[in-house]
Amino acid sequence: MSIKLTILGCHSASPRKNAFPTAQFLEIKERKFLIDCGEGTQVLLRKHKVQFSKIKHIFISHLHGDHFYGLIGLISTFGLHGRKNDLHIYGPKGIKEIITLQIKLAKSWTKYKLLFHELENLESELIFEDKKVEVYTIPLSHRIYTNGFLFKEKLGERKLNMDVIRSNPKIEICDYHNLKKGKDYISEDGNSIILNSKLTLPPSKPLSYAFCSDTQYLPSIVPIIKNVDILYHESTFLEDKKELTKQTKHSTAKEAASIAQQANVGQLILGHYSSRYDNLELFKEEAKTIFTNIYLAESGKVFEIKQL
Amino acid sequence: MSIKLTILGCHSASPRKNAFPTAQFLEIKERKFLIDCGEGTQVLLRKHKVQFSKIKHIFISHLHGDHFYGLIGLISTFGLHGRKNDLHIYGPKGIKEIITLQIKLAKSWTKYKLLFHELENLESELIFEDKKVEVYTIPLSHRIYTNGFLFKEKLGERKLNMDVIRSNPKIEICDYHNLKKGKDYISEDGNSIILNSKLTLPPSKPLSYAFCSDTQYLPSIVPIIKNVDILYHESTFLEDKKELTKQTKHSTAKEAASIAQQANVGQLILGHYSSRYDNLELFKEEAKTIFTNIYLAESGKVFEIKQL
Repeated sequence: MSIKLTILGCHSASPRKNAFPTAQFLEIKERKFLIDCGEGTQVLLRKHKVQFSKIKHIFISHLHGDHFYGLIGLISTFGLHGRKNDLHIYGPKGIKEIITLQIKLAKSWTKYKLLFHELENLESELIFEDKKVEVYTIPLSHRIYTNGFLFKEKLGERKLNMDVIRSNPKIEICDYHNLKKGKDYISEDGNSIILNSKLTLPPSKPLSYAFCSDTQYLPSIVPIIKNVDILYHESTFLEDKKELTKQTKHSTAKEAASIAQQANVGQLILGHYSSRYDNLELFKEEAKTIFTNIYLAESGKVFEIKQL
Repeated sequence: MSIKLTILGCHSASPRKNAFPTAQFLEIKERKFLIDCGEGTQVLLRKHKVQFSKIKHIFISHLHGDHFYGLIGLISTFGLHGRKNDLHIYGPKGIKEIITLQIKLAKSWTKYKLLFHELENLESELIFEDKKVEVYTIPLSHRIYTNGFLFKEKLGERKLNMDVIRSNPKIEICDYHNLKKGKDYISEDGNSIILNSKLTLPPSKPLSYAFCSDTQYLPSIVPIIKNVDILYHESTFLEDKKELTKQTKHSTAKEAASIAQQANVGQLILGHYSSRYDNLELFKEEAKTIFTNIYLAESGKVFEIKQL
């Protein structure tokens, strides 16, 4: 069980030298997801040596440029590299038209399948699910339709308690499958039963990551992101510019920390800094007045949680 | 009279660290033009300290991503900077739809005017003209509709020959305007006439720059670019990969040099290198077998011609 999050870009608005717009690479249960894709993301994927050809699912929060202008370039590059695997794109309604119009006018149809999953629901919904992972939207409140995304490991199998199992020589390797699924042990002749709880240990707690950008302070997301291990929450401003959060529909570092505290998250990562601020440590200081376990997003920084 | 060309990006296909797609900043007669705008161009404009807020006209050769994916981001950034001046965009039909669709979905209408000049003519045409400069298309042959651009200074005024003028005390400062326009000097009483050719010198030769990317070898452009001072011509490949030029409709360094030689240009700049090549000096070496005055495009490199 592990989550590995690589920050690619974490600044707001225009890309600048050493200040790249939002993009994150998430590895969870061997799945590789890209979250947002600001201009220049493909260069950052290369720079930070991310295995980006293995990305099969891209999640776009909203259609402001600093969150998706790099998507069409990445799609083109996949094509140039001879990609064959399907690519799934989750994003607001309209994203399909933007991408396909550009592909059509360039006469550059991809040889791999591009599958769009357009979002318009105002309630949280399950948008991706496989055997091991689920992804839900987190409806946010910004100037245009915007979603955050909640990535959750599914509850895994029970773990074999090998010390006990070895002391029961009747239990064979072919029984392990049923034990992991939670079934009791029943001997072949049906005379001997051992409760599953004696032979196995509970599965590891599933890990979860919530990505919340861009949004104004929105306590209604707290139930959705309750107890996540890592929360990324935008903090475009500090409290000194709080008046700007209303017109721009962004949050302050203190507001992000308040959401983290209410949701009882494991750790909070701040990002989406306005270019007005040179000293990013101030974001951490402000947030620390509300919540303790705080980190600053930074291009190339990796956040990892591992569980046995 | 001067031309100053700053290379921003000069590689083909995907942006990579230190290999940026096509974009050039041209200063001619105090006009500031942007030519093509691959992904990341706005970062390069900042990096090379180009006064990019003064760009009023952007020329896009074709709708392949490595020539225009940075345009929407630059337009957005101009908006964030509070731009008020009109911005003119010249490019293939379809460019307006791509840009306006993205602006509409982002609900980010610019407060400055965006004026699109969509091109679909297959013949060379005048697309920009003011008092001092003209811009013509150079129809190219690529996989999709593509134009190069020819930037020409207009013939300036005749220069005053001050040594002669000062020896004629009757000639006053208020006469200079007519003399520069080529008129003969006629004294107030009409009794004295001095031919203009005695009092003035010919104007400087107008400078010109031709941008030709992307195209297969196309001798039909030679009459359009004849005698230009600087020619930028794509050289995606060397002759060792000549077979690729047919399917991709690109040129080799030798073919670019042949065009330069036929057109009798002042200097040739090569660029749009394929990522297959690490040693770019080979492009120069190959081209030198045909034409002598050759330079390699490189991000941040400035080419300047000045005339008194």
